[in-house]
Amino acid sequence: MNIETLTARLHALESRMAIETLISGYANAFDLMDSDLLQTLWHEDATLDLPGFGAGANPGEILAMAQRNWKKMPHMHHWMANPLLHIDGDIATGTVAADCLFHDLTQGPVQVSGLYHDRFECRDGQWRFTSRRFELHFLTPLANWKPTAGPEKFERN
Amino acid sequence: MNIETLTARLHALESRMAIETLISGYANAFDLMDSDLLQTLWHEDATLDLPGFGAGANPGEILAMAQRNWKKMPHMHHWMANPLLHIDGDIATGTVAADCLFHDLTQGPVQVSGLYHDRFECRDGQWRFTSRRFELHFLTPLANWKPTAGPEKFERN
Amino acid sequence: MNIETLTARLHALESRMAIETLISGYANAFDLMDSDLLQTLWHEDATLDLPGFGAGANPGEILAMAQRNWKKMPHMHHWMANPLLHIDGDIATGTVAADCLFHDLTQGPVQVSGLYHDRFECRDGQWRFTSRRFELHFLTPLANWKPTAGPEKFERN
Repeated sequence: MNIETLTARLHALESRMAIETLISGYANAFDLMDSDLLQTLWHEDATLDLPGFGAGANPGEILAMAQRNWKKMPHMHHWMANPLLHIDGDIATGTVAADCLFHDLTQGPVQVSGLYHDRFECRDGQWRFTSRRFELHFLTPLANWKPTAGPEKFERN
Repeated sequence: MNIETLTARLHALESRMAIETLISGYANAFDLMDSDLLQTLWHEDATLDLPGFGAGANPGEILAMAQRNWKKMPHMHHWMANPLLHIDGDIATGTVAADCLFHDLTQGPVQVSGLYHDRFECRDGQWRFTSRRFELHFLTPLANWKPTAGPEKFERN
Repeated sequence: MNIETLTARLHALESRMAIETLISGYANAFDLMDSDLLQTLWHEDATLDLPGFGAGANPGEILAMAQRNWKKMPHMHHWMANPLLHIDGDIATGTVAADCLFHDLTQGPVQVSGLYHDRFECRDGQWRFTSRRFELHFLTPLANWKPTAGPEKFERN
């Protein structure tokens, strides 16, 4: 084992942490309506495709789409689970499951679940999404759930 | 600090990542009805014990048990959380919490939760489960939840 | 790249694993009513602030507060998600989302969600919480959910 091999193994672990932080950042940005955080997650040519909710082909379009959804769904809660990542040098692909509660102004409270299909690249030492696509597994009304506070009041960290 | 010590610390971190990937793989294999992925998770003498749902004492029996469950419960959603792992060289134990929604053909939609009690070993450089046992904490009907798409349509990655 | 730099990078990754283990430990300690585990998570001057549920300003007060809550809510299920950690040497801050089901003896079953705002320190080589504060995002009754087993019966690992 030499230092070069050790460094490469360390970089692979750091890459995984950076990618998991992007996945957490996405959930936090949507739930807290945090436009600044949302824009840091994407390379300039990144795409986000949320069938039924909108799409964007660069960080500006992604933010505009998020803002349209925040008006229609003023309460979002994402809980991400089960990340399966394949990291190969400076390129990575992966899936991650989401369990979500949304308060949709027209549909009322809904539980939404599915799998994100993701691509990431490390450019100039920075891991960012290059594409994210949501595969919907279910969207079902929740008669009993009531959101009780709005993200405009939540703290940013 | 010498290179041998560094290498051992690096191996411990890589082991944790490999084990977390097995935990994610199990959730994905069950939810996507992915027989190929399911079979890669176990050493040849591994056991899976899901009281009330079945058991298996090798990868073939585990797959057969999973297939029986997929017929009775054509929609499964596992979200894993709170892994607590104890890694000691090439042996590890741990627990991980699961929040699940299942559509059971006879009981209807149910929410199932509990704790997996796991053992893992690294043999020939490969971490795999050697045993997994589920401790059920609750199984409760969900009147309002409706699954809306079947895993036969979901993508494999 | 020299050994000192490698060691620092390795320490940063090990710190993240230690902190994620504290987050998992907290969820497990509350759900399993595990007083021993709960007390290992905090430095001696650590604070826990759960508005509406109580507070504590050292491990003894935190345990006493937990025990009061266990009497009022004999079933708790925490699922932690989306950790966002900022680690700077031996000090770290972070947030982590929680989705919870509680059986409250007076309110009945409720779903509780919010964001924990955390601080951690590594003292004498041990990462522990120095403060944890819960920001409630919703608390909503769940008409259909029925807990079916008590933590007094759950296994400790």
